[in-house]
Amino acid sequence: MSDQHIQSAFDRDLEQIQANIMKMGGLVESAIRLGAQSLVARDEELAEEVRRGDLAIDALEEQINEDAARVIALRAPTAIDLRLVLSVMKISANLERIGDYAKNIAKRTTVLAQMRPVEDNTVALKRMAREVELMLKDALDAYVHRDADLAEDIIERDRDVDQMYNALFREYLTFMMEDPRNITACMHLHFIAKNIERMGDHATSIAEQVVYLVTGARPDELRPKADSTSTAPPAAS
Amino acid sequence: MSDQHIQSAFDRDLEQIQANIMKMGGLVESAIRLGAQSLVARDEELAEEVRRGDLAIDALEEQINEDAARVIALRAPTAIDLRLVLSVMKISANLERIGDYAKNIAKRTTVLAQMRPVEDNTVALKRMAREVELMLKDALDAYVHRDADLAEDIIERDRDVDQMYNALFREYLTFMMEDPRNITACMHLHFIAKNIERMGDHATSIAEQVVYLVTGARPDELRPKADSTSTAPPAAS
Repeated sequence: MSDQHIQSAFDRDLEQIQANIMKMGGLVESAIRLGAQSLVARDEELAEEVRRGDLAIDALEEQINEDAARVIALRAPTAIDLRLVLSVMKISANLERIGDYAKNIAKRTTVLAQMRPVEDNTVALKRMAREVELMLKDALDAYVHRDADLAEDIIERDRDVDQMYNALFREYLTFMMEDPRNITACMHLHFIAKNIERMGDHATSIAEQVVYLVTGARPDELRPKADSTSTAPPAAS
Repeated sequence: MSDQHIQSAFDRDLEQIQANIMKMGGLVESAIRLGAQSLVARDEELAEEVRRGDLAIDALEEQINEDAARVIALRAPTAIDLRLVLSVMKISANLERIGDYAKNIAKRTTVLAQMRPVEDNTVALKRMAREVELMLKDALDAYVHRDADLAEDIIERDRDVDQMYNALFREYLTFMMEDPRNITACMHLHFIAKNIERMGDHATSIAEQVVYLVTGARPDELRPKADSTSTAPPAAS
């Protein structure tokens, strides 16, 4: 009976924390979308808005960690329950990192807006960001519904994002070689592509948390972690 | 009396975990050093060794997280004690990320070894890596001795690392503009510089954990988090 009571109290606490995870996820999804939009539109005001918005994301992570710590201290959850609480802390850390990358894209947008535009390829970046935004949305859905199949699917999709990145890496090299005046802008665009690729890794790591929660197994070794440009010289080299 | 017993049992558990943190720290420090060395010496074998070594680092993080979770479940620590356990989890996550960056440097070393060397500037990268290695060593010392002053000092030193990165960023832009045949190699060297700068951020975040543990205050806002190239166009642009 007392166990019963503790159990349900734990569930209420956890639901509260998960609600904040979802709220954080929503803010991060829009940070990705608006960050990419500010880049394509060279919209410095929108970029500034994305940068300011990161404060709310960081505050939510702080809140989630404090609440999770309180639940652990109060309810002393064991086994599965403890794994659940630890997973929300890991997921909020992933969301915070993705938010940081979105902020970084907004920062570079401000810099790029002051430079002569490179022959338009920001559309490819926006497509890549859109793909990552969907991966994140699905990762959070998979978390809420404890859907390991959807989570595995996301881990697969990270490969596509890595391929988009690799293609852009080569494209930027070409632009730079064609016209040295493109070099500085391409360095920034390239960083943005890399940031988006890293966002995909963090969305994937949320999906891996889901697989771990549902199956108890870690899919880490299955995961295509990095881009291939660091292991194989790109065609252009 | 029973409190006494639980308390000391908790201390024993925590000491065990902290021993693994130190072991992990030692492996990561040498990964930074050997990764930089392999780059300067264009030593592919050494680079391969650094890449293999990352497995042991990841395994230790896994171990630390499991042990920390077990301690939380068994001892239900509250307040300060809980903060301590959560901090070891955060610190091991920082160490794992630094190890990943070292592995990434080793990967790019393998790629660069197959390219025509750029007018030597890997020495500057090695100096930067050395600085970060010392920051990490001091951060772990500050953790063991709960030395908030040393930790604050490390947070300051991260500014120097950011400046070294900014200088390299401009240098690589210049190399690329001077000779397009340098572009691909400089892109990789540039990524390596960025990875080292990020390592410094993670060493700093360990130092911030120490300040938090000792003072209860978060120095986040004091911290120079990113490089300035994403906010201000470099001189070369």
